[in-house]
Amino acid sequence: MERHFDEDLKVLKERLLRMGNLAEEMVRTAVEALKVRDESLARQVFGDEEKINQLHIEVDELCLSLLALHQPMAVDLRLITAVMRINADLERVGDLAVNMCQTACYYLFKQSPVPEMGMILPMAEIAQRMLKESLEAFFHRDVRLAQSVLAQEEKQDRLKAGTLDKLIPLIRQNPSYGKQFVEIILISKNLERIADHATNIAEDAIFMVLGKDIRHHAADPVPAA
Amino acid sequence: MERHFDEDLKVLKERLLRMGNLAEEMVRTAVEALKVRDESLARQVFGDEEKINQLHIEVDELCLSLLALHQPMAVDLRLITAVMRINADLERVGDLAVNMCQTACYYLFKQSPVPEMGMILPMAEIAQRMLKESLEAFFHRDVRLAQSVLAQEEKQDRLKAGTLDKLIPLIRQNPSYGKQFVEIILISKNLERIADHATNIAEDAIFMVLGKDIRHHAADPVPAA
Repeated sequence: MERHFDEDLKVLKERLLRMGNLAEEMVRTAVEALKVRDESLARQVFGDEEKINQLHIEVDELCLSLLALHQPMAVDLRLITAVMRINADLERVGDLAVNMCQTACYYLFKQSPVPEMGMILPMAEIAQRMLKESLEAFFHRDVRLAQSVLAQEEKQDRLKAGTLDKLIPLIRQNPSYGKQFVEIILISKNLERIADHATNIAEDAIFMVLGKDIRHHAADPVPAA
Repeated sequence: MERHFDEDLKVLKERLLRMGNLAEEMVRTAVEALKVRDESLARQVFGDEEKINQLHIEVDELCLSLLALHQPMAVDLRLITAVMRINADLERVGDLAVNMCQTACYYLFKQSPVPEMGMILPMAEIAQRMLKESLEAFFHRDVRLAQSVLAQEEKQDRLKAGTLDKLIPLIRQNPSYGKQFVEIILISKNLERIADHATNIAEDAIFMVLGKDIRHHAADPVPAA
């Protein structure tokens, strides 16, 4: 029994890692597509959606069968419930990458380019770094790295607020570019949400290692690892 | 042991119901605040955020202790994992209500009213109905009702697309109201996401009752209850 459990856990982690890599790849491709205005790149992301949806279901089923067959306790139970939550977060990240590519293909690429598109790049960079580091923190059980992910969220929120503050007056000044500006705002909203999901993953990493639920207490000091 | 388990399960359901009621209440208050431009109503929702965050943690802890202490199987295991997912959805719904109230208090209420604000009302109505019915479907194990929630999502998506299509040209025509129009778009995005969470809850209700994961297959026929 013990042996099977360890093997099943290994498979579960491997699948979640695959899912994390795919989610990261989808975000990277979406951002690149927006940056270089490449529709075929954006359409690659549409193709990945089915793969990530498949993994989403597979990981949840593995968790459920681990819970049912092995009735894990304490550390293992925390690991499996953390995987279930991270699985949901990664599926949403994939959705958000798809959403950005839809905005790109159906709207942005049909209009003339605006230099303000560049405003999303610092936000994209932070979102991608947060996602990468939150997954690393989880897989390497690195509480310090998870904490540093949490510390980045505020910067992302400030950038998003700055994007809104700059673009809304621009809509007034250049109404003929209003559509593009609104779509840039919607994309910045998607990037903010990717950062939110990375925050969730970092919190789950801390929960798994320390057994302490720190959600909704981001302002409180996190116990040392 | 059996007796304790049933009692614990009752407590869990009662807490989730409380959380569902609070999430619904937050959305209702946020929509009403936007409709009648009442800042004190919007600020009520800020006050509810701490309560829903507290319940979020409490429900997750109850699930974890049920899994650890009773090692439930089959139906009970499906119930508990469904509760964990619904718990996460409801917490996000509360967040979205807070987000709408922030947009209201910090931006919309500081500007002159625009009649286009009325465009969010049909979306708000569908989002609220979907949320209410998805929770009812879960608590009453009503697969038919859950299916009817899934069928409403498309209408919500159409309304959201319609809002964008109408407002973006308006931004060009009345750039001095551009800020208000963008904020109405952001609110319609929030309402769309509340409907998404209701869809998740309906899918979890079906999963719990039928033991079949229908996520990512919304287009396929759902097995009869």
